[in-house]
Amino acid sequence: MAPANTYELSPYEASLAQMDAVKKASQNSDLSYEVVKSLTVEVGPRIPGSAGDKRAVAWAEAKLNELGFDKVYKQAVRVRNWERGFADARVVSPFPQELVITALGGSIATPEKGIEAPVVMFADLESLTQASSAEVAGKIVFLNTRMQRDRAGKFYGRVVPNRVNGAVQAAKLGAQAVIIRSVGTDNSRFAHTGVMRYDDDVAKIPAGAISTADADNLEAMFETQSDIVLSLNMQAKEAGWQTSYNVIGEFTGTEKPDEIVLISAHLDSWDEGTGALDDGAGVGIVTAAAKLVKETLGQPKRTVRVVLYAAEEIGLVGAYQYVRDNKDTLENIIMAAESDFGAGQIYQLDTRFDPAARMQAGALYQALEDMGITLGNNTTNGGPDVSMLPAQGVPVIALRQDGTYYFDYHHTANDTLDKIKPEDIQQNQSVWAMVTAFMANTDFDPRPAPQL
Amino acid sequence: MAPANTYELSPYEASLAQMDAVKKASQNSDLSYEVVKSLTVEVGPRIPGSAGDKRAVAWAEAKLNELGFDKVYKQAVRVRNWERGFADARVVSPFPQELVITALGGSIATPEKGIEAPVVMFADLESLTQASSAEVAGKIVFLNTRMQRDRAGKFYGRVVPNRVNGAVQAAKLGAQAVIIRSVGTDNSRFAHTGVMRYDDDVAKIPAGAISTADADNLEAMFETQSDIVLSLNMQAKEAGWQTSYNVIGEFTGTEKPDEIVLISAHLDSWDEGTGALDDGAGVGIVTAAAKLVKETLGQPKRTVRVVLYAAEEIGLVGAYQYVRDNKDTLENIIMAAESDFGAGQIYQLDTRFDPAARMQAGALYQALEDMGITLGNNTTNGGPDVSMLPAQGVPVIALRQDGTYYFDYHHTANDTLDKIKPEDIQQNQSVWAMVTAFMANTDFDPRPAPQL
Ligand SMILES: [Zn+2]
Ligand SMILES: [Zn+2]
Ligand SMILES: [Zn+2]
Ligand SMILES: [Zn+2]
Repeated sequence: MAPANTYELSPYEASLAQMDAVKKASQNSDLSYEVVKSLTVEVGPRIPGSAGDKRAVAWAEAKLNELGFDKVYKQAVRVRNWERGFADARVVSPFPQELVITALGGSIATPEKGIEAPVVMFADLESLTQASSAEVAGKIVFLNTRMQRDRAGKFYGRVVPNRVNGAVQAAKLGAQAVIIRSVGTDNSRFAHTGVMRYDDDVAKIPAGAISTADADNLEAMFETQSDIVLSLNMQAKEAGWQTSYNVIGEFTGTEKPDEIVLISAHLDSWDEGTGALDDGAGVGIVTAAAKLVKETLGQPKRTVRVVLYAAEEIGLVGAYQYVRDNKDTLENIIMAAESDFGAGQIYQLDTRFDPAARMQAGALYQALEDMGITLGNNTTNGGPDVSMLPAQGVPVIALRQDGTYYFDYHHTANDTLDKIKPEDIQQNQSVWAMVTAFMANTDFDPRPAPQL
Repeated sequence: MAPANTYELSPYEASLAQMDAVKKASQNSDLSYEVVKSLTVEVGPRIPGSAGDKRAVAWAEAKLNELGFDKVYKQAVRVRNWERGFADARVVSPFPQELVITALGGSIATPEKGIEAPVVMFADLESLTQASSAEVAGKIVFLNTRMQRDRAGKFYGRVVPNRVNGAVQAAKLGAQAVIIRSVGTDNSRFAHTGVMRYDDDVAKIPAGAISTADADNLEAMFETQSDIVLSLNMQAKEAGWQTSYNVIGEFTGTEKPDEIVLISAHLDSWDEGTGALDDGAGVGIVTAAAKLVKETLGQPKRTVRVVLYAAEEIGLVGAYQYVRDNKDTLENIIMAAESDFGAGQIYQLDTRFDPAARMQAGALYQALEDMGITLGNNTTNGGPDVSMLPAQGVPVIALRQDGTYYFDYHHTANDTLDKIKPEDIQQNQSVWAMVTAFMANTDFDPRPAPQL
């Protein structure tokens, strides 16, 4: 039955009807799950510049073409490839035990024979910076900060400086190496990797993360022992410059082809898991959302552009390349957003819209409120790979996901498909499809993003 | 204040009062947790015959002496030491991916350069036995049976034949190797090891377990691909005969020193985790129970004997040695029991008591019922290391624990102290102390165990 009275609907009602139609279509589709399954099964790990990364790029081009995107193209991105290699850590004395360790991304190797040195434990980076060289010089620094669990993952930002800056702070005081308690909320023997940084003015020392269970064990040894000696051997290496790609698929707008609704995720992952949550889920969600809008409502009025960024994990490298390559047309982006927080259900919409325009998106807010999603703040940066866009005036949104368990798996070998609940990723798919439909098929225009 | 009217209590009431006293003492004690913490922090992994096993024996002797047991002694047990070594498995084609694998205990190595062969998947051991040589010869067999989660862990017995007998069944049909979906209830990338067997009449082939997440991934590849090639390289080795020990501590009975209440656990563990749940928890529980009875009620009337068995994991080797060394005095054992199912709370008491005598333990049943523990069947075997005793007429009990999560961690690197909830192990400690008090200080005598 045709919707006989569609022509009588107000723009507000028509927009609600469109969002309702894509929601219903989404509720009968497992496309987002199937896309991330395909990526994790057929490609798996894809650290920037690796063979897996190259396979991921080929996979993404093929997948977007298979799904019928009008235009599928790539943007070359130069990336520094880093290989994890062998990693071994053990307590030599007083209680010989192996520790599960993984190198932090970008870490140099230890000498080939490893390092053997006393350990000195600090509760956090702040305590380390206040320590004296006498306490630290020649030792292995152990940064033992626990991360708390919460829905928004807000403790990540508080603990992650251990990972990013621990090596520099420890090296300033003459440490031989740094190991951190994994930045994660699990109690397990998976170590969490992630990017770390050196400072050109400070000696480079090897940096690794031990699992939370091993951090507990080492901490317990300190309860009765003061002289604890570790051996550490990590053979990570820089493997040279490689070319990776942002992979982009579009459904070209019928009425305003130059106006872009940019929805995105990152294609790369760390190398130990299959990158299901980080960020296979995002790849599945935004790809499926665009496809569902096209399939349900036909060609969009504005252009819907799906960007699968390269090399997010090593510093948003693909995202910065995108900005350089598109610098003259950034003002045509009506809205940009990234899905990069796993597959937990969405509970809040944050925006960065022109404040006056923000009031005009009532239909969107109503449709989301019907799904239990509240309207949040107007100060979001939209997610890592679009975070540099608001400074260029590009409006962004963040569809905030339940991250209660995200950091149990984040950047570990345990980030695999089984952690995604089909019903959760489907909810994400529905919401992204609704937002995309609203942004692509109405006249709503939240430009420019406010400068905070 | 002295209990002024104790002399007026009936034996039934006196027994209840004793159990209540040890329960209260237990509720103020974290001894079982501290014992397993000491074992996992100071010793850690302790596969039979290894350096860790030797440290565990020394640790156990020292711990029992430190806790004031009257007699502490060892029984030599000859064990075959096996070393896991390096293990690597990967899908070569069509989708190159690494698989997390661990060798099954006792497996031979692959040739030094590994094996590269097509994989053939079977849903269970039954399907494999019905296959033809043509389907299997020259291939790597993948046994892909899922284990269900339940409180009693009853699905373990249904799935574990894959692990124990998979190599023999696969080799009969000419397979080059066998890999199994880990026998576990987790969704993770921890592989579960455990003992496997060869048959002298059948070719020995290497046997490993892949994690459940990797089994999912491999299974997903079979949804679209029929020709899947794996490479497998495992360098396990037999490392010769070693001497391990059962470590035994006693509080000698004042009235009936020859009558033995035998409570036990196993001291050995697998080599990848620290053996916190399997069976550090049991070591902590039975050691603390005996100590609490002595401390609260004074020297017991019957002898309380704590046996920490060697080499349970590789076939109850220490337990059989105990039977040989004590064969003339087994009839003096009033009751034997083992704690070897983690640290989940106890919900049921099963027994193997002379049926007439069984009616005489009413005070015990009442005290346990007050803790929500029900009386179960009279057909238990009492746990692995005491399972051969009922055939000799020795009564046994099983204090059945909530094992809902036990097989998430069982025989993995993730079996570590953080999996034990202090309140759960304390409940076990209380119940074991109560049972020990009842058996040691009353005239209750359930001998002989019925033959089923
Ligand atoms: Zn990410
Ligand atoms: Zn990440
Ligand atoms: Zn056990
Ligand atoms: Zn075991």
